[in-house]
Amino acid sequence: QDRSSKGRCLCADKGANMVLVRNIEKVEIIPPSPSCSQHEIIVTLKNGAGRKCMNPESKFTKNVIIKAIEKR
Amino acid sequence: QDRSSKGRCLCADKGANMVLVRNIEKVEIIPPSPSCSQHEIIVTLKNGAGRKCMNPESKFTKNVIIKAIEKR
Repeated sequence: QDRSSKGRCLCADKGANMVLVRNIEKVEIIPPSPSCSQHEIIVTLKNGAGRKCMNPESKFTKNVIIKAIEKR
Repeated sequence: QDRSSKGRCLCADKGANMVLVRNIEKVEIIPPSPSCSQHEIIVTLKNGAGRKCMNPESKFTKNVIIKAIEKR
């Protein structure tokens, strides 16, 4: 009885387009899987401010991730 | 008494240059923080095969992440 078409995705909506970079403690990229057909990008915010789904399509999300891996 | 110069980084060594993409359940990017001055990229492998530090400098690591965020 799959109540939502999203199966068991962690992110119910499209996700935020932006967060303050300095508030990001960790970025998680979860590729599609049997339980969720879409990519999910979830940031953990500092100071216990919780986790937030990011819109994988937003330029901001992509830039933050690319900058994170490009940095020495 | 900071025993290692790496402070409290999760990754002790440089990390793996490559893993089988289909074995990746999740990718975590942890930006530098007061407790660890370097970027850390950790993949969680499927089927409970554990977590593995990836070398942030390796082309493979960068490509996997960029492909993950570029995919529709």
